[in-house]
Amino acid sequence: MKKATTCTEAPKNSIENYIKDIFSISNHPKLAEIKLDEKISTITKNFLQDDSVCTDIDLVSITHQFSNSQIPAEPSEITSYIDDLVTNVIDHSIHTSSPRFIGHMTSALPYFVRPLGKLMTAINQNVVKTETSKSFTPFERHSLALMHRLIYQFSEEFYQFHIQNYESTLGIIATGGTLANITALWCARNFSLGQKDNFTGIENEGLPAALKFYGYEGAVIIGSERMHYSFEKAAGLLGIGERSLIKVPVDSKNRIDLSKLQQTIAECRTAKKHIIAIVGIAGATDCGAVDPLLDMAEIAQNANIHLHVDAAWGGPVLFSEQHRHKLVGIERADSVTIDGHKQLYLPAGIGMVLLRNPQIAKVIEKYAAYTVRKESIDLGKRSLEGSRPGMVLFLGAALNLIGQKGYEFLIDEGIRKTQYMANLILNQPEFELLLEPEINILLYRYIPKHWRQKVATGELTKADNQLINQFNEHLQNLQRQAGLTFVSRTTLEVAGIPIVALRAVIANPLTTEVDIDAVLDEQIKIAASISVLEEER
Amino acid sequence: MKKATTCTEAPKNSIENYIKDIFSISNHPKLAEIKLDEKISTITKNFLQDDSVCTDIDLVSITHQFSNSQIPAEPSEITSYIDDLVTNVIDHSIHTSSPRFIGHMTSALPYFVRPLGKLMTAINQNVVKTETSKSFTPFERHSLALMHRLIYQFSEEFYQFHIQNYESTLGIIATGGTLANITALWCARNFSLGQKDNFTGIENEGLPAALKFYGYEGAVIIGSERMHYSFEKAAGLLGIGERSLIKVPVDSKNRIDLSKLQQTIAECRTAKKHIIAIVGIAGATDCGAVDPLLDMAEIAQNANIHLHVDAAWGGPVLFSEQHRHKLVGIERADSVTIDGHKQLYLPAGIGMVLLRNPQIAKVIEKYAAYTVRKESIDLGKRSLEGSRPGMVLFLGAALNLIGQKGYEFLIDEGIRKTQYMANLILNQPEFELLLEPEINILLYRYIPKHWRQKVATGELTKADNQLINQFNEHLQNLQRQAGLTFVSRTTLEVAGIPIVALRAVIANPLTTEVDIDAVLDEQIKIAASISVLEEER
Repeated sequence: MKKATTCTEAPKNSIENYIKDIFSISNHPKLAEIKLDEKISTITKNFLQDDSVCTDIDLVSITHQFSNSQIPAEPSEITSYIDDLVTNVIDHSIHTSSPRFIGHMTSALPYFVRPLGKLMTAINQNVVKTETSKSFTPFERHSLALMHRLIYQFSEEFYQFHIQNYESTLGIIATGGTLANITALWCARNFSLGQKDNFTGIENEGLPAALKFYGYEGAVIIGSERMHYSFEKAAGLLGIGERSLIKVPVDSKNRIDLSKLQQTIAECRTAKKHIIAIVGIAGATDCGAVDPLLDMAEIAQNANIHLHVDAAWGGPVLFSEQHRHKLVGIERADSVTIDGHKQLYLPAGIGMVLLRNPQIAKVIEKYAAYTVRKESIDLGKRSLEGSRPGMVLFLGAALNLIGQKGYEFLIDEGIRKTQYMANLILNQPEFELLLEPEINILLYRYIPKHWRQKVATGELTKADNQLINQFNEHLQNLQRQAGLTFVSRTTLEVAGIPIVALRAVIANPLTTEVDIDAVLDEQIKIAASISVLEEER
Repeated sequence: MKKATTCTEAPKNSIENYIKDIFSISNHPKLAEIKLDEKISTITKNFLQDDSVCTDIDLVSITHQFSNSQIPAEPSEITSYIDDLVTNVIDHSIHTSSPRFIGHMTSALPYFVRPLGKLMTAINQNVVKTETSKSFTPFERHSLALMHRLIYQFSEEFYQFHIQNYESTLGIIATGGTLANITALWCARNFSLGQKDNFTGIENEGLPAALKFYGYEGAVIIGSERMHYSFEKAAGLLGIGERSLIKVPVDSKNRIDLSKLQQTIAECRTAKKHIIAIVGIAGATDCGAVDPLLDMAEIAQNANIHLHVDAAWGGPVLFSEQHRHKLVGIERADSVTIDGHKQLYLPAGIGMVLLRNPQIAKVIEKYAAYTVRKESIDLGKRSLEGSRPGMVLFLGAALNLIGQKGYEFLIDEGIRKTQYMANLILNQPEFELLLEPEINILLYRYIPKHWRQKVATGELTKADNQLINQFNEHLQNLQRQAGLTFVSRTTLEVAGIPIVALRAVIANPLTTEVDIDAVLDEQIKIAASISVLEEER
């Protein structure tokens, strides 16, 4: 940052004393840490208690504070550094836990994660291997087993055998759903094009050799148009190319069209294309739709294809007695992605993939003499990432401190309030509900007065929709910029026409009906100001 | 964990109150958080002030505490949960900041990261997009620019143009060096087999189509035998297969053999194999060796091949006036990996890749209507990961609060103390120095009395070495298990014979000569106990 002041040039032994002092742990906590701790507490308090979503500063003026390019020679003085940090960074951060920030999947947090965040940093375990984490290895395996059982509900004997058996991998923690999805498809690719006869497997010999050995003309991944963009990363990375990520159309409820799925499978078979995996979605990122997982499981099983379910968002719906039927079939998936930092209400940086077959991850196993040895029990042996923090501290704590019933309440409330918002929208002429919500993601749009009649009679033209799209884009930008309330936006294709949608994501137990009213009221106000502006032009 | 007690069954509205209470921010910090904060402070204090590396509990007995497989129905009571957590997890975590833990790359930490860890958790930014982070976007771009300049030293004009220019990508933050290396090679692959004429590029069309279009028989990545195992992950993931990761032999200093590298390049060309990248190493994970980067840059440039330098460990040597010459040539690399959680002394979970060409990352660009749109400035547009925490908070703070001179001291001291340890070893008949250290990683072994004469005269047989290997493995296991001091171990091939080495990594400003003496003294003691045991057999 621009303003950070530096100490006056210090002789070398003063640098030595300074560095030894800031690293010192013998007199922990030192006075400086206690003071900083207090300062950070105040900063946190001010940040969390602020009701708004963000300041209304425009991004360009923030960037001006970040234009120097030299690392300072001398250490900056801590108090002024932190003051600058607050002014330039913290003050303009997004209140992702604000009850009126209902537009993205970054959820509110229970209080206990904050002290645990400090603990995690302080003990600084690296779970890649037991020599840098020890107890975190069984701890992480345990938390993954709890999540595994939530999905698969295998027998007590199954879990007793696998939880702490280092030959088994019930799941893998990663930074987020993207890496979890990539890991799942990496496993699926390697497992389905694995070692056979004199072929040592795709992981060793590569994709072209694997296709040649198995007699395929290509390899594909199949899912619906609503797949998360991480699958494009996966297809690109894994060498099959984005072109080989086949996106099957969806029905009116944004669920994969099963007959088209079956047709696609048949076509791939005819064209000698190997199907690495079928992807089911449990809570599509843009609209919350849940694919017909049971039917997909049946299709995948009959065709002997790996079924991966991306439940990054929707997975925790399993906690709810009332709603878990929406995910039926997930227990037959070969792999399931769930994000911790979404509906498990954990801080950013934790996702996971759960694996039906505890042996499948062996196809991505790697060793290194200096760290994860063949005979070792290190978690880093079967993971995409190498060194990783002990994020399981949050997961383990939340599973215990929130518990099944706590999560059930969170899920039920999110869906209930989404339904409340949907009903509000249905009853207000200013808005159009674009989709009956499946869970707690809601798509709608504002309809300027001029077009309301046409909406009612279903006579909107493509040109009308383009203008309405522009209006909603503008509306969403103004609402975000004002910083009082927030919903996001997306674009849906409806009958071949792109429709800009306002997108509410309701996953905060503190969001009340009053907050939801306020979000819509603000949109009506902003819309009025846009109309006035346009009339003035 | 086993013992966590649960509340007695609560009616639904009590769950509602409980959940709303733990998420509440209106009266932040609430009493429960203040109490937990105090408790965590005590736990942290006890943990950090403990001199030992770990308890001597064996891992199997820890696993017994983690054998239940059901998520508790009711929320556990916080105090008893935290008490159990301490007993079962924290108490048996590794003191990675202990001055006598000198065996892995998990470094000691400056005090300010602990309060910042809490702040990062509290504000919970998700830097995938500005709508969930805002100021963190320019902040992260800025910190990456500082690191970029440390390596490339381009002109002030260059940085003024690129730092906050969203068309440019000076670097990408990832969880660690593994993802940074994979990202770099993903860029290299896509850039070198990109769009041309009617071919839309490998990312879209896949590896087999790319090879066919460009007329190649295969694709390879070339580096030395000392490459980190993340390159095996990269080769596997990217579809070329581990077999196509060509490991060139090293010289006696563990540096890539340049003539063999040139020969390999020529052979690949003859065999019509496309070379995606040449990998140079700046601080090999097992032995600290630094490849001849300047010569490699010359070779790569003449052959028009992407040069990636894995400086995950060694990159910060650039801070040292005295030692930076060891990395000369790094400024000509197309991409450079540096880990924050290694020699930038940050908590686990932050690595980065710096990119010479600010446009190259466009070959991995992805969009999604609901999050990173084409016209957006979101960081998630060009990254392997999706949602990610604001780890840059640590990086930005450390670059300012430690500064160039502080890092210089840390680097110089690490190398100086490694030299001290090397000299000690040279002067003690019990030990053999296996390699003159290049920076702050040291390989040596214990030589039982019986073989010392043979070591001195260079007459050890393969069988002798096997027995010495067993001895050193045993010694390292016992030392780790005792938990007082720690070095790691690795296996090196020396003249075709595998040699088990004890491996010291010295990256803690609090590690003194006394600590180093203590590590070696303990090894001598343990070795004596092994000899006694063996005589008793």
